[in-house]
Amino acid sequence: MKNLKPAAPVTAAIPAPPNPWSAVREDLRAVEEKLSRLLDSNEPLISEICHYLVDGGGKRLRPLFILLAYRACGGGDAKVEDAIDAAIALELIHSATLLHDDIIDGGQLRRGKPSALARYGHAASLVAGDFLFCRAFELCGRFEERLVHTAARACIQLTEGEVMEGRMRRNPAASLDDYTAVITRKTASLFSAGGRVAADLAQAAPRTIEAMEQLGLALGLAFQMVDDLLDILGPEEKIGKPVGSDLRAGIISLPVVMSIQANPELRRLFCSKLEGANLERALELMREPSLIARGRALAAAQIERARAILARELEPSIYSDCLASLIDDQIDRDL
Amino acid sequence: MKNLKPAAPVTAAIPAPPNPWSAVREDLRAVEEKLSRLLDSNEPLISEICHYLVDGGGKRLRPLFILLAYRACGGGDAKVEDAIDAAIALELIHSATLLHDDIIDGGQLRRGKPSALARYGHAASLVAGDFLFCRAFELCGRFEERLVHTAARACIQLTEGEVMEGRMRRNPAASLDDYTAVITRKTASLFSAGGRVAADLAQAAPRTIEAMEQLGLALGLAFQMVDDLLDILGPEEKIGKPVGSDLRAGIISLPVVMSIQANPELRRLFCSKLEGANLERALELMREPSLIARGRALAAAQIERARAILARELEPSIYSDCLASLIDDQIDRDL
Repeated sequence: MKNLKPAAPVTAAIPAPPNPWSAVREDLRAVEEKLSRLLDSNEPLISEICHYLVDGGGKRLRPLFILLAYRACGGGDAKVEDAIDAAIALELIHSATLLHDDIIDGGQLRRGKPSALARYGHAASLVAGDFLFCRAFELCGRFEERLVHTAARACIQLTEGEVMEGRMRRNPAASLDDYTAVITRKTASLFSAGGRVAADLAQAAPRTIEAMEQLGLALGLAFQMVDDLLDILGPEEKIGKPVGSDLRAGIISLPVVMSIQANPELRRLFCSKLEGANLERALELMREPSLIARGRALAAAQIERARAILARELEPSIYSDCLASLIDDQIDRDL
Repeated sequence: MKNLKPAAPVTAAIPAPPNPWSAVREDLRAVEEKLSRLLDSNEPLISEICHYLVDGGGKRLRPLFILLAYRACGGGDAKVEDAIDAAIALELIHSATLLHDDIIDGGQLRRGKPSALARYGHAASLVAGDFLFCRAFELCGRFEERLVHTAARACIQLTEGEVMEGRMRRNPAASLDDYTAVITRKTASLFSAGGRVAADLAQAAPRTIEAMEQLGLALGLAFQMVDDLLDILGPEEKIGKPVGSDLRAGIISLPVVMSIQANPELRRLFCSKLEGANLERALELMREPSLIARGRALAAAQIERARAILARELEPSIYSDCLASLIDDQIDRDL
């Protein structure tokens, strides 16, 4: 008996979740190739800034979501070029907003490296952002009006979310509703537009198109909520920027709106110049385990919502499994 | 004989040039109404900044040019809504670039008033500019792909022109060719796109579409050249900003590239910090009458080019007369 090999592990009974990246690997490769070409400009400085940002380790979460949504809604190879272009357009728009956001917030670090602002200055970063917007606009020219409108509305919401966030900055009266309104516009709008456009391109039924928009919204909200928790939990190597960046900038993040009403000390700190010992103390207060757990539960509720829509509206397939996996990943990442 | 009234003046024999604004008054009114509505946002601050800029006395030169070009190419009432939307889109894009240019140059005065930057700060001005780009993008959604491409290409050229201008800043080796390359992208691209789109919407022949693009290019170049001369001639009340603003910012304007090679004193001044006595001396050198005359002649050559295209390509009509008048006005304005 001693010579017998141990039994094979029973992992076959618990299949690993499908890898969302693998399922649309070819489509994503097409996104990367065309995206990279579209970053090139007659002005080398514009190309350099765009490549510096876009090649610098973005997760391509929006393209991945759009491509999986397209396939999960039954979209075939014949029109996948459209889904690829839509994925690129949304990544271009997202990248443009990153460049402009760093100018607005004075962000010096992005994805663990000096931001484009820190490296190239505000003038060149601003123009490179405009260039990326224009590239997206150029790419969308071939789409039908309703698709362009969906994308344009999402962009308009992004700008409105940015201003609303500024309006709420260091405002101790900010509520969870205010917060949700900001992140619906500032983060989730591109995901909801992506879900809608993907389903539309896949020629899904109107009901499914609406559902995929809602799924994108829930996914985007969950993504931002988790991002907000990571901002105070860190560590810096993991999140690619200093811990507490949002807090220092006075942004009303999820842990802020969840704790500030009940905690006078935190309220006082939030309205002050949050640096050094003040920042450390605020972080300490906000890392309170029950607070983090409540924040996580709010994100989990959005994840549940997205999963429920998926289960109700989409036929089972490798792509809907991958979409489910992508959704689950948002809450699992590093929390 | 003393009781006789003096003879009526003989002005009837020399008809006044047609008023371009009157010829398309109704179309321009439609532009104003819809443009104003499109400036409204869910975020009051965005609406306020956009209205502050757009209602603040712009000449609407681009909409006027597009509407006249559309009519002069035979465009009728049936599709004038398209021409109106195109005119609005280009004015929105132009307005977006004004907001962003002021951030880049730190421009504190615009059209005789504090700039949006001075009044609302860089963050809000940046986002309001993005909002205006998105509105233009939204409006263009209903156009055919080639029209959207023309507009998007013009926007991309604007950003490239901005970077090229930055690259040439305080560069004493800048030539007239460099200058022409900058203003072709930074100013004339919206006029050439406007000419092209207007003729296309009017269903003109391909040859006429090309010609109107060239006419727009020449008009835009002349407009910018005259603007550059006015920048050093002033006075401030007329140009709405301090005299010598471009010079102080180190921008390679027309009088700069025309004089800097031959004048070592000016070359030295241009590379230095141009303020106070230095700025006054540079202005004095550049206001030399023969230099101004040569600059004016370069602008006049573009005016001639535009007029020749018009005479060759367009049927005589009240609209082509008005277009001719608009073209002539660019060189006559205040010089």
